[in-house]
Amino acid sequence: MESPRRPRLTPVIADLRRQVRALLTEAGPAPGDALVLVGFSGGADSLALAAATAFEAPRAGLRAGAVIVDHALQAGSAGVAAAAAQQARELGLDPVLVLRVTVEHGADAGGPEASARTARYAAFDEARRETGASHILLGHTLDDQAETVLLGLARGSGPTSLQGMKPVGGPILRPLLGIRRAQTRQFCVDSDLHPWQDPHNDDPRFARVRVRQTVLPVLERELGPGVAEALVRTAGQLREDSSALDDLARVLSEQLSEQLTAQLGERADPGIRLEASRLEANPPAVRQRIIRFAVEREFGVSLERVHTLAALRLVTDWHGQKSLDLPGVRVERQDGWLIFTAPGHAPSKGPSRSHGTPRH
Amino acid sequence: MESPRRPRLTPVIADLRRQVRALLTEAGPAPGDALVLVGFSGGADSLALAAATAFEAPRAGLRAGAVIVDHALQAGSAGVAAAAAQQARELGLDPVLVLRVTVEHGADAGGPEASARTARYAAFDEARRETGASHILLGHTLDDQAETVLLGLARGSGPTSLQGMKPVGGPILRPLLGIRRAQTRQFCVDSDLHPWQDPHNDDPRFARVRVRQTVLPVLERELGPGVAEALVRTAGQLREDSSALDDLARVLSEQLSEQLTAQLGERADPGIRLEASRLEANPPAVRQRIIRFAVEREFGVSLERVHTLAALRLVTDWHGQKSLDLPGVRVERQDGWLIFTAPGHAPSKGPSRSHGTPRH
Repeated sequence: MESPRRPRLTPVIADLRRQVRALLTEAGPAPGDALVLVGFSGGADSLALAAATAFEAPRAGLRAGAVIVDHALQAGSAGVAAAAAQQARELGLDPVLVLRVTVEHGADAGGPEASARTARYAAFDEARRETGASHILLGHTLDDQAETVLLGLARGSGPTSLQGMKPVGGPILRPLLGIRRAQTRQFCVDSDLHPWQDPHNDDPRFARVRVRQTVLPVLERELGPGVAEALVRTAGQLREDSSALDDLARVLSEQLSEQLTAQLGERADPGIRLEASRLEANPPAVRQRIIRFAVEREFGVSLERVHTLAALRLVTDWHGQKSLDLPGVRVERQDGWLIFTAPGHAPSKGPSRSHGTPRH
Repeated sequence: MESPRRPRLTPVIADLRRQVRALLTEAGPAPGDALVLVGFSGGADSLALAAATAFEAPRAGLRAGAVIVDHALQAGSAGVAAAAAQQARELGLDPVLVLRVTVEHGADAGGPEASARTARYAAFDEARRETGASHILLGHTLDDQAETVLLGLARGSGPTSLQGMKPVGGPILRPLLGIRRAQTRQFCVDSDLHPWQDPHNDDPRFARVRVRQTVLPVLERELGPGVAEALVRTAGQLREDSSALDDLARVLSEQLSEQLTAQLGERADPGIRLEASRLEANPPAVRQRIIRFAVEREFGVSLERVHTLAALRLVTDWHGQKSLDLPGVRVERQDGWLIFTAPGHAPSKGPSRSHGTPRH
């Protein structure tokens, strides 16, 4: 009789292992790295990932541990975390960390899901610091990716929101983005592993749960199976397009931005300027990114699209407008230049709505 | 008592007229143009558009007529077309053309809807030739746009399919892309106009009908109202991104493509070549477009993404592969160049799978 701890090598087990191996050997840890951690909840996705990583990591010359984040949002969550830790150890993962986090309700504009996410990723950073691990492996599947893309579509915040999760994002590795959720469940069955069912995963108060339980099934029923894969394929191409434009605009943004102090001496407000005609020579998608990146570099502020567009009207629809107070930055046009200064600074000439000291 | 032909000016009537006026005066006919045609079915969308255009066109110095396409797909379609023609004339449109088309089943890869679409747009071209009209105005609404984007997503053919319809596309103007379908219905109520209900619009055999009746309502219910607007907003930004990359890649594609005959003399196969290292210097989104545009220009073939990627593996994953036969073009790599020739031509050297005459 076979031992339940020695699973048969079924196709789905081979598939998952191959995905983990690919990321560990191609995109992941450098030769000097010694340890990776699996973000572990005990659910089917992370359980399959943990088992596949426990198998592959030693073969890639790495140790594999686990980090379990106790969000402390449900009664008994400490017990759930302890059981998950036990399961991770039984898979051979070592070290196994349990980090209890505080989810600050309302701290994040995105609601409780976003707050939990912020706390979770902070815990991953802490786990890396504590253990010296180079990477965290997360069990997001193709289904999670499709849900992310649909949620982004519903928000309508454009290409950025549509991009979905990256297989490699800094220290975060997601080897299962090409794997369906049904496959991680099958992996657990084939491996005689018993996943934990997170009641949050069935709570229809969460938009992601409604997408999973209702929206994607309706899309697949009405428009044919393969919608999840189609969403993910599209997300991949959009990521490619958007990153090409980002790279191009980042270079142009640095080339076109001039420091005000360098140009105008000590009398000038700190800030930058961009020549309107050189901005206008670029297509709209590039212009907007040039401004967004310049403001981000200089003032540490991420302008929303509506604000970037407002600033651009000083280029594309110039008829002597006043200075424009955007969140975190003031924009005005003078002598063919767009001038970006910190809010509250008096514009160096022209109509002033500032309460600062006039300079002229 | 007010006459039913003199509608009150309600907000929705003002709204639609404003949209029509904007396109007619800003993006549409040039000063020399005299006539525009409304693509008219008698349904609420095109009825509202026709009424608004009949009002606005004379104020923009234009005449407005109508073109009715009888797709001849349903019994009694000629009668429906004649009734629509009568309604168009009563709105003051002149001339009113009825064009009967033949929808070739299976002629289009996209099924019966795509075949009907092809026939319809051919009829619009014919109507412009017959009447000398400069533009055709179509009544596509924000709802149609959202449906188009969702259908594109379900196909998963990437940014192209996600782009949706353009407000101005050559001679086609779509003034109502910012208007909800409910508003065109309200316009008809406010104007005492009686739209025709196309039974095709309720036939769930059509994917678009299923999106309209089931998919979008479920999305709006589960993810909040405003999903249609979000889809459309996203489509607009993607159109902007994609068109910036297209413009950039088109220029690069012309710069990098060299005619084989110019380079290698008369002995060479007709075709083009691109230097692998210069292709590789561009981000993936640009590389793919450079190849796609080069092949399109030279061979009149639109490569699918999977084929462009296959050609690019001769750049990014070169290990001495054989020549590659793609639909309508052969690609091979020689001495650091990607060489594109017509299919069936013998490659000028290297391993040959061709049945043509060997040249060496």
